[in-house]
Amino acid sequence: MKGNLAKGRITIVGTGLIGGSLGLALKAAGLKEVEIVGHDRDRGTANQAQRLGAIDRAEHNLSRAVTGASIVIIATPVLAVRDVMRQIAGDLAEGAVVTDTASTKAQVMQWAEELLPSHVSFVGGHPMAGKETPGIERAEAKLFSGEAYCICPAVNAKEEAVRSVVSQAQLVGAEPLFIDPEEHDQYAAGVSHLPLLISTALFTMLRASPAWTEMAMMASSGFRDVTRLASGDPRMSHGICMTNREAVIHWLERMIGELSHFRDLLQDWKDEELLKAFAGAQMDRDAFLARPPQRRMEASALPNLRQQLLDALAGTWVTERARRLERLPKLQEKRSSERKE
Amino acid sequence: MKGNLAKGRITIVGTGLIGGSLGLALKAAGLKEVEIVGHDRDRGTANQAQRLGAIDRAEHNLSRAVTGASIVIIATPVLAVRDVMRQIAGDLAEGAVVTDTASTKAQVMQWAEELLPSHVSFVGGHPMAGKETPGIERAEAKLFSGEAYCICPAVNAKEEAVRSVVSQAQLVGAEPLFIDPEEHDQYAAGVSHLPLLISTALFTMLRASPAWTEMAMMASSGFRDVTRLASGDPRMSHGICMTNREAVIHWLERMIGELSHFRDLLQDWKDEELLKAFAGAQMDRDAFLARPPQRRMEASALPNLRQQLLDALAGTWVTERARRLERLPKLQEKRSSERKE
Repeated sequence: MKGNLAKGRITIVGTGLIGGSLGLALKAAGLKEVEIVGHDRDRGTANQAQRLGAIDRAEHNLSRAVTGASIVIIATPVLAVRDVMRQIAGDLAEGAVVTDTASTKAQVMQWAEELLPSHVSFVGGHPMAGKETPGIERAEAKLFSGEAYCICPAVNAKEEAVRSVVSQAQLVGAEPLFIDPEEHDQYAAGVSHLPLLISTALFTMLRASPAWTEMAMMASSGFRDVTRLASGDPRMSHGICMTNREAVIHWLERMIGELSHFRDLLQDWKDEELLKAFAGAQMDRDAFLARPPQRRMEASALPNLRQQLLDALAGTWVTERARRLERLPKLQEKRSSERKE
Repeated sequence: MKGNLAKGRITIVGTGLIGGSLGLALKAAGLKEVEIVGHDRDRGTANQAQRLGAIDRAEHNLSRAVTGASIVIIATPVLAVRDVMRQIAGDLAEGAVVTDTASTKAQVMQWAEELLPSHVSFVGGHPMAGKETPGIERAEAKLFSGEAYCICPAVNAKEEAVRSVVSQAQLVGAEPLFIDPEEHDQYAAGVSHLPLLISTALFTMLRASPAWTEMAMMASSGFRDVTRLASGDPRMSHGICMTNREAVIHWLERMIGELSHFRDLLQDWKDEELLKAFAGAQMDRDAFLARPPQRRMEASALPNLRQQLLDALAGTWVTERARRLERLPKLQEKRSSERKE
């Protein structure tokens, strides 16, 4: 352990699309007293993040970047999280909060337990947001606006640490969602990782067809939307598969079954069933868009987010903590009891 | 056959998203001398098209709507095209141009041959455009901008008729693409109908999962993009399957194979191959977005589109036709010789 808790330093490790957008969003939230330091293994990326105003200062030495930081956000592809944890473990300040943004959580929680010192609090995070094209050039403050921000506190994480990550998620405009890491990975495999694989498989297959030139000439917005995720960062996609293998295989099998079902309907001239399937999908999806399920943690549950994050940074928690802390475990409990299989 | 070629009437049958957008785009192109009449089997839709300025006048009697029209655009879901052709056949003016906007072409060309009188020219059309939500409310003049507009002239269609549909496509901002109907259906099955089925199957499967509520809370822009086509008009999707069954089954089988391949890579821990697959998809898709294959008919090939369409409407073709007509067969020839399997 080196250094003390300097008042107000957040260090972002990995200043690409997600890390850069977090920086921009935190700045847009008006955290002027806070210094945001950025590190990227690619120096040019960190420098560009600084030029774009996503960080106050690029620090090319990882050890120096995290030394004395109150909050460290690891925003690298998931497979790099382990190395970063290993490298920074000895440099983290007493009581520091460490969080991440990786697409899978169970593996990351395990690494944190193995690699991080017990005097820091790890609170896993996964902002559910992305863009057609990765990279710091595309970073924007509004990236997380209205999207879910999954939060998985380590069992030994301090409540203050959990609160500061919740505040951070809300300050960037996202909606925090407490979730068990294993459940997160199962659900993310369906709603995020499977779409990624489908998108990639569809694009790869058509691209390899002898008729690709003709098809590409005909391709319209529908094709571009469905294949959008094929343009994501390959290391990120690869890391997702490596750290969530079983769940992804499960959903791939399910999808193969679903496509086979549609093939059978076509082959057996089940016209009416096909029409029903299309009509049902349209109705259900329109309902989903019009009334998405409410995430359970309302913004009002945690008033004065900015002050809370500042408090966390300074390590000076207000004394009437009890009242405010009371709500958090309740919400977690509520979610657990409501969970369906 | 009733009525004569009135100077300047275009009739749109089916004034939903596509028909309405065609009307708006033609009006935006400054065709003020032309009257655009709209008919929809749902009277409210036709009235709304009129209120939105997509048509000059709603005509609820189909027979009266097409009588005396120089150009009839059938913009209904594909299965309704047949009925419309049957109903209007006796009312079409001598020399009228009939076109459509349906998603499949071989079946439509066959219906046209069987049902339309020999004194009219049928030129099949398929503007490659759509939106998340169908309906006249979403119609907009820019819908076709920069997208392909597939054109399949019937063997006995007059060159003037072909030209007027080409002009119409260009006037609405699209890029005309001459294509054989059978080939169109094969390619569209891959690049348009398969994505539609994938989108629908993915949404339907996840929606039916016991964990849907949790997954829906986590769903982000990636999920919404990949499932976008599930919100399309069910009758349209159903009609596509009914009229392009074999090609769709073919591509569904191919996609099942591709997903199985990815599943195998995961199951066999082929990490490096997975990374390569993601990297290749990203590179190829970025190249496709940056440099989409050029459609072969440049705007400059047919100067003064507006005048050409007006000429077609008036039936008064300029005398130096030879020079201008010369180019069309050449382009068609060029495309045929360049076609790959």
